Order: sequence, then structure tokens, then C-alpha cells
Amino acid sequence: MRIGIVGGSGRMGQMLIREVLGNKAATLSGATERPGSAAIGRDLGTLIGADPVGVVITDDPAALFANSDAVIDFTAPAATVAHAALAVQHGTALIVGTTGLSPDDHAKLAEAGTKAPLVVAANFSLGVTLLAGLVRKVAATLGDDWDIEIVEMHHRHKVDAPSGTALALGQAAASGRGVALADVKDAVRDGHTGARTVGDIGFATLRGGDVVGDHTVIFATEAERLELSHKAGSRAIFARGAVRAALWAAGKAPGVYSMDDVLGL
Amino acid sequence: MRIGIVGGSGRMGQMLIREVLGNKAATLSGATERPGSAAIGRDLGTLIGADPVGVVITDDPAALFANSDAVIDFTAPAATVAHAALAVQHGTALIVGTTGLSPDDHAKLAEAGTKAPLVVAANFSLGVTLLAGLVRKVAATLGDDWDIEIVEMHHRHKVDAPSGTALALGQAAASGRGVALADVKDAVRDGHTGARTVGDIGFATLRGGDVVGDHTVIFATEAERLELSHKAGSRAIFARGAVRAALWAAGKAPGVYSMDDVLGL
Amino acid sequence: MRIGIVGGSGRMGQMLIREVLGNKAATLSGATERPGSAAIGRDLGTLIGADPVGVVITDDPAALFANSDAVIDFTAPAATVAHAALAVQHGTALIVGTTGLSPDDHAKLAEAGTKAPLVVAANFSLGVTLLAGLVRKVAATLGDDWDIEIVEMHHRHKVDAPSGTALALGQAAASGRGVALADVKDAVRDGHTGARTVGDIGFATLRGGDVVGDHTVIFATEAERLELSHKAGSRAIFARGAVRAALWAAGKAPGVYSMDDVLGL
Amino acid sequence: MRIGIVGGSGRMGQMLIREVLGNKAATLSGATERPGSAAIGRDLGTLIGADPVGVVITDDPAALFANSDAVIDFTAPAATVAHAALAVQHGTALIVGTTGLSPDDHAKLAEAGTKAPLVVAANFSLGVTLLAGLVRKVAATLGDDWDIEIVEMHHRHKVDAPSGTALALGQAAASGRGVALADVKDAVRDGHTGARTVGDIGFATLRGGDVVGDHTVIFATEAERLELSHKAGSRAIFARGAVRAALWAAGKAPGVYSMDDVLGL
Repeated sequence: MRIGIVGGSGRMGQMLIREVLGNKAATLSGATERPGSAAIGRDLGTLIGADPVGVVITDDPAALFANSDAVIDFTAPAATVAHAALAVQHGTALIVGTTGLSPDDHAKLAEAGTKAPLVVAANFSLGVTLLAGLVRKVAATLGDDWDIEIVEMHHRHKVDAPSGTALALGQAAASGRGVALADVKDAVRDGHTGARTVGDIGFATLRGGDVVGDHTVIFATEAERLELSHKAGSRAIFARGAVRAALWAAGKAPGVYSMDDVLGL
Repeated sequence: MRIGIVGGSGRMGQMLIREVLGNKAATLSGATERPGSAAIGRDLGTLIGADPVGVVITDDPAALFANSDAVIDFTAPAATVAHAALAVQHGTALIVGTTGLSPDDHAKLAEAGTKAPLVVAANFSLGVTLLAGLVRKVAATLGDDWDIEIVEMHHRHKVDAPSGTALALGQAAASGRGVALADVKDAVRDGHTGARTVGDIGFATLRGGDVVGDHTVIFATEAERLELSHKAGSRAIFARGAVRAALWAAGKAPGVYSMDDVLGL
Repeated sequence: MRIGIVGGSGRMGQMLIREVLGNKAATLSGATERPGSAAIGRDLGTLIGADPVGVVITDDPAALFANSDAVIDFTAPAATVAHAALAVQHGTALIVGTTGLSPDDHAKLAEAGTKAPLVVAANFSLGVTLLAGLVRKVAATLGDDWDIEIVEMHHRHKVDAPSGTALALGQAAASGRGVALADVKDAVRDGHTGARTVGDIGFATLRGGDVVGDHTVIFATEAERLELSHKAGSRAIFARGAVRAALWAAGKAPGVYSMDDVLGL
Repeated sequence: MRIGIVGGSGRMGQMLIREVLGNKAATLSGATERPGSAAIGRDLGTLIGADPVGVVITDDPAALFANSDAVIDFTAPAATVAHAALAVQHGTALIVGTTGLSPDDHAKLAEAGTKAPLVVAANFSLGVTLLAGLVRKVAATLGDDWDIEIVEMHHRHKVDAPSGTALALGQAAASGRGVALADVKDAVRDGHTGARTVGDIGFATLRGGDVVGDHTVIFATEAERLELSHKAGSRAIFARGAVRAALWAAGKAPGVYSMDDVLGL
């Protein structure tokens, strides 16, 4: 199974290269970077501090998709939308871990998903995928006399808030309750806020140090709280999950799949 | 629906009296204490700092069972076993919240359950009942490369460890994995312990202040942790759940029921 | 020592009445409510569900200040500023637990503090007072390669965010670093925020259930986090601390005192 | 400054080699392993997956001490005691991170400390060193109506409990209260324990996954809790602190120093 990486020289890209190289079921078909990147032409093995592997970073994603059964993409929204078009063109599976996708971006991915297999997830870890399922179930069981709050912490370099994973957990809670997250999302509290609105889902964001990703969903009512948390210790769990998704998706029928599908949950 | 309380003058007994008095679907049929207790003869309303209700504490549980549709029991193992016999004799439902029950005590309750309806639970809160279900499910989904640990904190007056609720959560985890808790329970770690045994379920106990009851079940593997917690802010949630169980159980067919049954989970 | 309560019929007011009645060193001199309140004329003992004490709620704060050695005030900013003027006029000590005070309100309290003894605190618990001292010290010790974040959770009825206590903890951290909180406060994160600014102090707010007040200050750097938390289980700790402050402040020289002063920390 | 490592091929040894190689103020003088270890003769650079450095692992600690200004030791009690004798013989500073030391071992280190500079610590991170100081101070401030509990979590491979760091935090708390930890330590709770003894310091141990080290000290009283936590994300912080201690200790007067001394706290 030939797996390619777009955005190969960043922190997540290097982690993905390492995982593909370490996975016996996979062959690393290549990796790309933006035109002009200093990483172009570097050997993928050398790039991650290992022995050379004889494959270099290019700025030609079309060639990468042509030569891959699946491509993994943790880049940025505009690039990801372009890559989805290449996936359709070459019949390649696309694994999308990009965060910050707009509704419009999601619509384009859904369109691509009618012609190629895509796996789209905010978080590729087994733990978070399980957590989202628990959150949906608990939200469906408890009435709205239980308030739902989501708090997350990530490293100081993260540029968006709440995290894609926090929003996905919010989606899971909203779907469990049969409401749209957009109608109940409460992500800003500062100054005179008034009392909490019944049914809202609150978000709180912490940033600091090099925290890989902590998420907690709190269900709070009179005199009791149920709290469901996930703590990631290393980005390796996301890379591992993405490679697992790539191996699963290559050759599948067109569709937009989730990690639930990949893990058979 | 006539509900009686055995062990009515203790902290939990008073909470139960308050809940039954405040519940429109229930009538308080009486309450008992051990012979010789200073509370014998006191009005149940006065006892809890409210207006007199014209019913006093007695030391005659047989009369209480004869006059009740359901009796709630948060006493001690020996007393509870005796009360189960009275439940059978009078066809009264018995709600058991007693902790520290031995396997032999449980066998006697099971026997009583062939002739009267019993609800037996380590914890009557909605949150903990839900939590136990989640723990079972997660334990069934994850392999034993995920270590399971349970930590609880209770007030400084608690005399047994781990808490009945912690053990019930351990049972839920063990049942999810298809093993017997007794075979994998690891409640003592002090000195040279050696490395953790694969498949063990660890327990850690904290005691201090007036903490009503905090429980966390941790699933930990390489680079990620899933943690499921419940925090009780007041014993009222247990009293409320026990009264709900009493209303549900009165008149049911014989059997040993759980809070899952009561809540329809 | 005669202690009065302004705003006596609310949740905190009732708690304060209970504490003063239960404290042998104190005499309850009276309590007030807003003109038109349904509580006017009610006996203070009856109001809290205890025996009558022969003192009723009035709408005359001037008379209350005239007859008290200290008055405790957990009301609202405008009322508190008016009460400070009465404290000056009658030489009464004023204990201020009101939250949401503006810089202008604080200036007026400082002015009153030149003529009467005031104790002003965002939180009257021993634990939080200690915590603020620890936060100041840690912030002074660690460089700004340690990011400071503050997260708090309160009940669903709270109308302001972040809590007064969270802001006071932020002040303690800022003062430890020798900066003004206003220059580094970061209380809103939603959407594209960009990377964290070095030196910022972040705030995150959770609301739900009946949580009395949980606060955590996080110091996060590469590969380690130091977290200092306080969890309040009952408003009684605030009432108890306020009564302790009242007993301490009555008869003191004019000044704006803190709980550090009261506790001798 | 020439720094040597004893026990160089284990997980912590490799981390220490990496830190010394990466520190411009330090020169790596060598590393040793037990006679018969497969690592003997391997280049220290190659061992950690980097370029060769021309220095190999030997089984001759005497030669290592002779050629080093400071030696770092995270091995086992018996080996550490032997290394302390070498430190005395060669006037080399010794940095001891070994856990599980008995009172007798500590006595031998104290004896060595009369003739050579030793830094002995259960935990070399800045955060934990600070935390221990906070714990001592809080324990000294609060009365024993505040119960002290310590809970820690480490990876599944750890063989001793409670962790050396947990015990050191317990020592800090006991010293703040002016008692001996041995008189108040409560590390086993299983079965019928009876109520908590006033003044005890409780320990609870969690093991699972690859957790580097989480420690929380809880101070709990009626209706409030103060919790002080440290979370280590990588052993690198311990290696970094040990190298900092080595650079500080080399050439110092004989003595048994702590990380407080090294950090000037």
C-alpha cells in the first residue's frame, strides 16, 4: 500500500513520515511541500533524523497523488480542498486531519466524497474517537437540566480556538441532544454575561507550554458532575491513527468516512 | 406509596426522611433505629429540623415492614441481611444502599430476591449509574494494552476502602473485559511492587475533609489516557435516587434489581 | 460585637445570618433588604428556617450601620458604594464581598478606607487566600517561559465572568511578575486567535450545575505543568471567613484591608 | 566542565547523554554500564541515535570518576552507594537521582557528603522543586483540621510505590507540620480501615500507560480543598535539571545539597 504525505516537513508531516516508514503494511510513496520551501529536494529519511530512504520532498502534489493509494493531509483548508480535487482525479484515498475547515470547505469535501474515499476527522486517536461516542450517548440520555461544558488545553503555538477536537466533541453532544451546535454554542464569556442559557454548550480554551491536547466534557447538574476526559501525550497517536485510516481507506468505495468507520465502532 | 426508613437517625437516614417527606408520590410510613438509640421516640420531622409530622422513630423493624410498600436501608451488612428476611415475610420491596457487603451477604440477598423485589446498588446517583455503563463499554472496546485504574476520594469518616462505588466501577470494567474482578484487583501498592501486571485493575483511595464522593476511572496506554469521572456534591443525590428506586420497586415481581433497571438504561 | 448584614434575604445573606447566629463572639444587630422586598418585616431566624430571634429585616441601612460595629455586604456595586458612605458616617467597619466592582467603585472604597476600616476581598475562604499568596510567589519565581492560565467553574446562575476570585488570582500572578493585569489579560479566545502572546495571563470560564466555585491556576512550560487549585464545597466557607473578618475589623484604624491581613498571612 | 554518566544505556541514561551533548557548558567525559552489558563498547552518540562522538560505554566507573568533574547517577541503591565512595576518592561531584534509597543508604550518602559535593533529589524538575516548597509552606500554615493526601501516577513499568517524588512531597508536608513522615504515613488502605487518623499523610498510587509522572498534594477540610499538582510530560526535564545540578555542584565544598540549593530557592 503506497502512502503519500502532503505538507511533509512540518512537525506533523515528519511524524507521519516516521509512522509510514515504521509500518510494515505501508510503503512511503513520497511527500510534498509548498513551492519555495527549503525542504524541497531533501531526503525523507534524513529529514526526520534517520537513514536516507532515497525519496525526496517535491512541490508536485499531482505526481504524488498519481503514485499513491492514499495520501495523508494535515495542512491548511485551501490546500486540502485542492488536494481533494487531486484525490478525485487520481482515485486516491484522502485522509484529512486539517483543522479550521469552513462549512464551505466541508461542502467541497462532501462533493469530492461522492467520487473518492475520504476519511475526515478532527482527531485520529482511538481515545478521542471513543470519547466522542460516549459524549453523544450521555448527551442523549441526560436531560437539559444537565449543563454541558467543554474545556481544552493545547500548546502555546496553536492558532485557532476552540480546537477542532473540542468542536467535534461539541458536535457529538449536540447531535446526542438533537440540536445544531451552532444554535447552542457558547464560546465567549467575559464581563456581564447573565445567567447560563438552558441547553447551551459552553467552550473554554486554555493555551500554554507544549501540551499536545487535553479535552474534558463536563455534564453538570444539581449536586453531581460527570466528566469525560482525554489526554494526549504525543502527536504520534494522531499519526498512527491517520496511517491506520489510510490503510483502511485505500480502495474503498467513494464516501466521506469517519474514524468510527475506520475503527469499526 | 408508603416508604419506611431503617437506620433513620444517622446522616444518611435523615437525608432519606427529608427526601420522602418532600416527595409528593410518597408517604413516610416510619423509621427505626437500634434498640437503645437515643433517637427512639423522637418525631421524624423534629429530628431533621423541620415541623413535627406525628410519626416517631421506633426499634421495631417488623412493624415498619408490615406497614410499608418499600423500605430503604443504608445501614450495616448484618442488619441488612435481617431486613431482607422481613421484606420476604411481608412482601415489602427493599432498597439496599449498605456498603461493605460480603459475598455471603450478597448470596443471602439473592435468596431473598427470589421472593421479594430488591434494588441493590453501591451508588444511587444517576451520574454513577451512567458512568458504570460507560466503563463497561469502554473496557469491552479497548484491549489490555490499556491499563485500568480507579481512584476515589471520600470524607475522613469513611471506614472502608475502596468505596463500594469504586468496587462497583471495577466490577463494571472487569465484566466489560470478561474477567472476574477478584482475579485482577490490585488495591495495595507500597514498597517494591514490581512492574504492573497486564490486565490488572488498580484501585487507589484518598480520604479527607468532607468530600461526598469523587470517582475516576482511568484507561491509560502509550501516549493517551481516557478518564471518566463522577463528583458528588451532596448525599441528597443518593437519597433522591433511593426514593426513586423505592417508588419503582414497590409491587414489582421478586428479583434483585439494579439502578440500571430503575432508570431504564 | 454587633454584626449587621445588608442584603439579608438572598442565598448569601441567609448564609451570613446563620453564621453570625452560630458564632458566640458575635451578636446579630439586624439585616436589610431593598425597599419593597417581600422579606421586609420577616424575622431573621424564621427566614433561615430556624427559631425566631426577635429581629426583623428592614429597608433602613442607615439605622443598621448606626447600631453595628461591623456590617457585611455581599450585594451589588452601587449598593456597596452607598454602604461605604454609611460606614464612614457611623464609624462602622465594612466587609465587602461584592463582585463586579469597577475601577471607579474601587476608588470610592479606597476613599472610604481613609476614614473607616474596610475589608475588601473577592473570596473570603482561607484556602483561596492562601492560594493567591502561592500564585504570587510562583509567578515571581518562574520566568515568562512558563505560561499562566486560570480556569474557573461556577454554577449556572452566575452572571459575571471571569469570577471575581479568578480575577484576584490573575492580579496575584500579575503582581508576582511585576506587570498590570489589564496589560496581559486574555479572556476571550474564539476563532483564529493566533499563537499565544508571551507573558499573557489567560482566563477560561465554565458554568454549570450548582458548582460553588472551582479555580485552577496553571503554569505551563516545555514538558511540565504546575497547577494550583481550590475547590469550594459550600458557600459556608465564605460566610465564615466574612464573619471572621468582621470580628477582626471592628474597631480597627481606617484602611482597606485584605484577607491576608485578617488571617495574618 | 566534564560530566560523566553511570548507567548510560537505559532510558534515563540515554536522556542524560543527550542533554550533556546538547549543553554547551558541558563536555561528556564518558558513561558506564554493568559488566556484561551488551552496551559496553558502543559509541555514546550512536547509542542515542545521533552521530558518533568517539567515546564508548565502559564498565569502569573508577576511571570515569577520575576523568570527570561531576558524575550523574540514576541507577540503583547499591550501585549508587558504591559510586559515592568513588566520588569521595576522586573529589568528583555526584548527582544522585536514584530512587528507593533506604535510610541506611541515605546515611552512607550523608557520610560521603562530608568529603565530596553531592546533590541528592527525588526529582530534578524545577516544577517539583518549587512544589515541594509550596507544600512545606502550606502544611506549616494550615492546622491538622486540613487532611493531607498525596496521589501520584506513573507508567506501568515503575517498580516502587509510592514514587520517590511522592515521598519527598510527603517529607515536605511532614516537615512543614513539624512531624516525622514515618509517624504519619498512611500508604495502604484496603478493607475495613476505620476512620482517617487526624494528622496522617495519605498516599495513593496509580500505575498505567507511559505516564512520566503526575503528582498531586491535596489539603482537604470542611467544604474546601486546596490541591497542588505537577505533571511531567517528558523525562527530559529531569535530565535537564540533573545536568544543571552537575554544572552547579562541580567544585563546590563537600555537602549533601538539594535542588533548592541548586536553584537558589
